[in-house]
Amino acid sequence: MAETQREDSGAEQRESSGYKLEKPIVQSIMECVEARDTEALDAIIDTLHPADVADILEQISGPERREFLDLYDGDILGEVLSELDEGLREEVINALQPDDLTAAVRELESDDVVDLLEDLEEPQQERILEALPASDRAAVEQALTYPEFSAGRLMQPEVVRAPEHWRVGDAIDYMRSDTAYLPEQFYHVVLVDPMMRPTGYVTLGKLLASPRETPLMEIVEDSFRTVPVDEAEGEVAYAFNQYHLISMPVVDNGGQLVGMITIDDAMVVLDEEAEEDILRLAGVGENRISDRVWDTTKRRFPWLAVNLVTAILASIVISQFEAVIAQVVALAVLMPIVASMGGNAGTQSLTVAVRAIATKDLTGANVWRVVRREVLVGLVNGLFFALAMGIVGLIWFGSMQLGYVLAIAMVVNMVVAGLAGILIPVALEKIGVDPALASGAFVTTVTDVVGFFAFLGLAAIMLL
Amino acid sequence: MAETQREDSGAEQRESSGYKLEKPIVQSIMECVEARDTEALDAIIDTLHPADVADILEQISGPERREFLDLYDGDILGEVLSELDEGLREEVINALQPDDLTAAVRELESDDVVDLLEDLEEPQQERILEALPASDRAAVEQALTYPEFSAGRLMQPEVVRAPEHWRVGDAIDYMRSDTAYLPEQFYHVVLVDPMMRPTGYVTLGKLLASPRETPLMEIVEDSFRTVPVDEAEGEVAYAFNQYHLISMPVVDNGGQLVGMITIDDAMVVLDEEAEEDILRLAGVGENRISDRVWDTTKRRFPWLAVNLVTAILASIVISQFEAVIAQVVALAVLMPIVASMGGNAGTQSLTVAVRAIATKDLTGANVWRVVRREVLVGLVNGLFFALAMGIVGLIWFGSMQLGYVLAIAMVVNMVVAGLAGILIPVALEKIGVDPALASGAFVTTVTDVVGFFAFLGLAAIMLL
Repeated sequence: MAETQREDSGAEQRESSGYKLEKPIVQSIMECVEARDTEALDAIIDTLHPADVADILEQISGPERREFLDLYDGDILGEVLSELDEGLREEVINALQPDDLTAAVRELESDDVVDLLEDLEEPQQERILEALPASDRAAVEQALTYPEFSAGRLMQPEVVRAPEHWRVGDAIDYMRSDTAYLPEQFYHVVLVDPMMRPTGYVTLGKLLASPRETPLMEIVEDSFRTVPVDEAEGEVAYAFNQYHLISMPVVDNGGQLVGMITIDDAMVVLDEEAEEDILRLAGVGENRISDRVWDTTKRRFPWLAVNLVTAILASIVISQFEAVIAQVVALAVLMPIVASMGGNAGTQSLTVAVRAIATKDLTGANVWRVVRREVLVGLVNGLFFALAMGIVGLIWFGSMQLGYVLAIAMVVNMVVAGLAGILIPVALEKIGVDPALASGAFVTTVTDVVGFFAFLGLAAIMLL
Repeated sequence: MAETQREDSGAEQRESSGYKLEKPIVQSIMECVEARDTEALDAIIDTLHPADVADILEQISGPERREFLDLYDGDILGEVLSELDEGLREEVINALQPDDLTAAVRELESDDVVDLLEDLEEPQQERILEALPASDRAAVEQALTYPEFSAGRLMQPEVVRAPEHWRVGDAIDYMRSDTAYLPEQFYHVVLVDPMMRPTGYVTLGKLLASPRETPLMEIVEDSFRTVPVDEAEGEVAYAFNQYHLISMPVVDNGGQLVGMITIDDAMVVLDEEAEEDILRLAGVGENRISDRVWDTTKRRFPWLAVNLVTAILASIVISQFEAVIAQVVALAVLMPIVASMGGNAGTQSLTVAVRAIATKDLTGANVWRVVRREVLVGLVNGLFFALAMGIVGLIWFGSMQLGYVLAIAMVVNMVVAGLAGILIPVALEKIGVDPALASGAFVTTVTDVVGFFAFLGLAAIMLL
């Protein structure tokens, strides 16, 4: 693909083959840094998008980052900061000279400043707020009064609005006048009533294509949604995704227009939510690839500790059957199979359920149909693998009865796994716990305990 | 939040509290269906967004869907079809009367028709193609000549373009003329040279805000990217996300403008990619919550079968130590703990790695730093849990040596788990296999085999 960057001074063209930040680019940059060649470094960085520069900073080491920041003299640092992983922002902000930080922050729109500030400590927040012009500072402080992770924090307070009785010509003249402040990104003009309540919006495309005399009310979009300023950002992102929105006006308790959220901010949230789900299901919380050893260790530890407890629980079950195992050592060889198959089936079931809950595809309307399906699937797969394991038991250890024990335990565990995999996330969701976070531990506890108990218990009955 | 839907006939207002399709709505709809009350059904459906109607159809049962389709008489069926889960599209298309299908398909833009067609069988594709007006049909057939999952399939061939030497006034007059075809969604005007090659684009916002005499070249965006028509859709979605794009022009081999991809299509792909990753990591492939029992069983079976093989492998390792277990039955009680901790640590590591590979945060530039980090994290956590398990072994079974065996095996397995969790996805990616798909099985095989071998092997040496 081709990317061209245009500077005020002329056209700066650069072909890059593919979006991957190839090792060569990173190497050239580090060579400039080592040679302390500011000019060459700025030249390379100028051809890159801030998002790619942020990626590079995430991939190099701490000391290399500091050298980079010492040397870099260009003007995209503010945007780079917005794109940077939260884990690295503090480090970079601390490494910047006060003047550089001021310059960087002044480049940004107020919603990006809010995003930057949210994760910083008080003193750093103060530093940044002091660097802003008065009006921006007011907007940012206003945004910070809204709850964290709410629509109020995502929105841009400057909205292009027009009284609902205006015509196309009025709107265009207004936008061309000096008094109008037009945000970097806007895609609609919001119509408001005399009480400043939004009543519809017009896409810029329709605005452009319609004659000047057309009343704006005649070309509003069919479907119009607004969001309260304290709505959770996850719900906002869901709406953007579900209804294919490009922008959505934000209203306060009185229904008055207070801001606009655009698709780029919603997409960041959507991305974060998907990432969170993937990482939570595996018990790694907010682990990022750029985290250091100690942070990573701390973030993985809780889940491992919980799993240690569940593993010990399962071992307690096994220990009830020590005598049985002592007599038929084959049981020790085979028991992990039943438990592990149950664990895998349970994980499949719970992953589909957690994902469906997150996308609102699993609701009160269809949960019992899904439970019924999970039980049947567990039964069918269970029977199939029961047959397979029965044969394995027979061939490997020459015992028909061992085969039966394996088979029955397998069916039981697979059905229980399916049930647990769907019921546990749903139950956790109902009591307000994030199913992605906690289901895994509960489900594997159930499948391990049931797996070992069914297998060893049946063995005790049938073989002794 | 509030949602208002406007009909040509006037303003139809409806407040819905929250985006969740509450059970009450689904129930009202099913009541209308059972009462065979077309008018009431159409009235309710008219107030809903097609995406929500699709969700409802996904949540009710097969027979209920057919009754709904028999009865529903409104005109949003085409959009609903686009929003429907792929697994259900075939069923719904087959259930529609030919006239209804024709009407439904004619509502859609050509890129949505392409998306609909892609997953259908030949005869059904033919039915739909025959329903289209000739020009749309040509556009769709052209799109189908591009590889599946490529930019060519996502794009809208109609692009709002202007010769690069035009001024703002020329562009606006053109868009207002009868000859211009303006797509439902467009956010930029693409500037082209005499060879029809794109040289930049102008946002509608800037177009509106600039005086008529302004040359378009003066208000183009700083950053401009195009994508080749055969680029993989995953790369397209990555670019939209990474660079916060709203639209991106598509060019053919000669660099000529052939279409435009807009954010709504890219977001669907992004969403699908994230969902695929989550589901693949758990081995459920394309399982959707609306799938029926048999489809679900078939989709989960392969992963379970693979895991059965790896579980048997692990059991073979255990069976080498039958004699040891016969003598020290405590080993059978404790061995699942070491294996399971290794499995969990390995899964944490592999999930972070797979996600980082997908978001291009793990590349040749930082892979060895990450490997080193994983080994250290495995070591630190391993030592901690080794201490914990050593104490457990001592307390539970009263044997210092058992404690040592547990501790050493734990450290070994945690370090190996960290290594495997990062190296296996990277290796799979390098040989062109999707790491999300296959890593899990390999990593747990390694941790199980190493876990059992280390524990039982050390036990054999130290206790006998």
